[in-house]
Amino acid sequence: MAKSIKKKHQDIFQIYGVNGSSNIIEAKKINIIRIDLMVGGVAEKKPWINDILRNKKFPVHRLPKTQFLQKYSGKRTQGIVISFTGKIIQNIPSLKNMEKNICLLAVDNIEDPQNLGQIIRTSECAGVEGLIIPEHGNVQTTNAVLQVSQGAFVHISIYRCGNLHQQLLSLKKDGFWIVGVENSVKAMDWYQLDYNRKLVLVMGSEGKGIRPVIRKTCDILVTIPMQGKLNSLNVSATVSAVLFERNRQMLQTCTN
Amino acid sequence: MAKSIKKKHQDIFQIYGVNGSSNIIEAKKINIIRIDLMVGGVAEKKPWINDILRNKKFPVHRLPKTQFLQKYSGKRTQGIVISFTGKIIQNIPSLKNMEKNICLLAVDNIEDPQNLGQIIRTSECAGVEGLIIPEHGNVQTTNAVLQVSQGAFVHISIYRCGNLHQQLLSLKKDGFWIVGVENSVKAMDWYQLDYNRKLVLVMGSEGKGIRPVIRKTCDILVTIPMQGKLNSLNVSATVSAVLFERNRQMLQTCTN
Repeated sequence: MAKSIKKKHQDIFQIYGVNGSSNIIEAKKINIIRIDLMVGGVAEKKPWINDILRNKKFPVHRLPKTQFLQKYSGKRTQGIVISFTGKIIQNIPSLKNMEKNICLLAVDNIEDPQNLGQIIRTSECAGVEGLIIPEHGNVQTTNAVLQVSQGAFVHISIYRCGNLHQQLLSLKKDGFWIVGVENSVKAMDWYQLDYNRKLVLVMGSEGKGIRPVIRKTCDILVTIPMQGKLNSLNVSATVSAVLFERNRQMLQTCTN
Repeated sequence: MAKSIKKKHQDIFQIYGVNGSSNIIEAKKINIIRIDLMVGGVAEKKPWINDILRNKKFPVHRLPKTQFLQKYSGKRTQGIVISFTGKIIQNIPSLKNMEKNICLLAVDNIEDPQNLGQIIRTSECAGVEGLIIPEHGNVQTTNAVLQVSQGAFVHISIYRCGNLHQQLLSLKKDGFWIVGVENSVKAMDWYQLDYNRKLVLVMGSEGKGIRPVIRKTCDILVTIPMQGKLNSLNVSATVSAVLFERNRQMLQTCTN
């Protein structure tokens, strides 16, 4: 019985900065519990902040400059910090009956918060359906990750995953093509793939790549040949190049 | 006369981490003045470090763990820090007689070191000829920028520029097309441009875009339409999407 009485713990997240804050303010996915606003800060001058102060929908605390800076020292807040709770990450639902050419993105071995945050942001901008983050070997949706994503996490589905190998096999059964993106001579050039299908793009880290067991699960491997002397593009830059090649193919198919 | 006697000041830069260090170690563009190596660190186990220790080409200082960590506290060094001098940035030479389809990248209003560092890295990987950084309104080649670039700065030409407007006019006379990349309804989709020409891509920041005087100088504007709810892709992600669309066109032209 003790279990049911136990108070349910919910993580409190924080987003700071004008852009990130404005991107999450109306999101249904989160529950805003406090907005700290610095008197005389950049944020205070934004019209949408005036609306928030006027309609009293959120608990806004206007703090004097010294108190605010003391509370959030070392952070580039632009005078606004939003504290919130919410189900940022969820279990993956059945995607069997989803439309023909949706795209999911799975990460493998991504440990750097900056990279994962940028991947979430770019994926949202590129219209990716959802992001799969395995529970082991990857940074999770920490404050730092959510911050770098600039609020994109509220507009894209983020799925937890206990075992990526099993998850990919299950998605294969549901009609998805599994495409591994990595630096490999065996892989085809990224633009040679026809992206017009249900697909899961699997992104490994620059250093470690994709784990062998995951690589074997892939139906296709694609790569971006380097034109300089460095051998490794940042993983979030790779995500951008691949996702917008997909969008190019979609848009050109539509207009042709 | 005092001027000529005055000791010439040269900035000392530092790069830390295994990847960044291995990328700059053989570069002619820099002069390595000291390598600090932590006893028992990650870097020490790399074969190329053994070569360096053996051939005694560089002044390597092996520091005990406590001393090393004290010296570089708060930095993700992986047990290696390289201090060096060098002409990281140079005046732009005449590019009039350069080959037909080279590409330069100019930044305008890029203030974030993380973004500039990533832009340098991605540009190098994509085979960009050189990067133009105006002296005003942009972060310069600071330690933080060089660090994020992961050593890419030694393999790509970086040009200083007093007046970007004048510089672009001069490049126009030399046969370059000036292409502004920004979020604008007037712009054409990024893949509709024929990149097979001498061109300068001008990148503005996400917040401020390109300055109006620079925008007017552009022959063409291109944009990447967003497919999600966020309206602003990170500028380094934009650079990646645009540069690899250029590479796609080049590679497909070659193989067709």
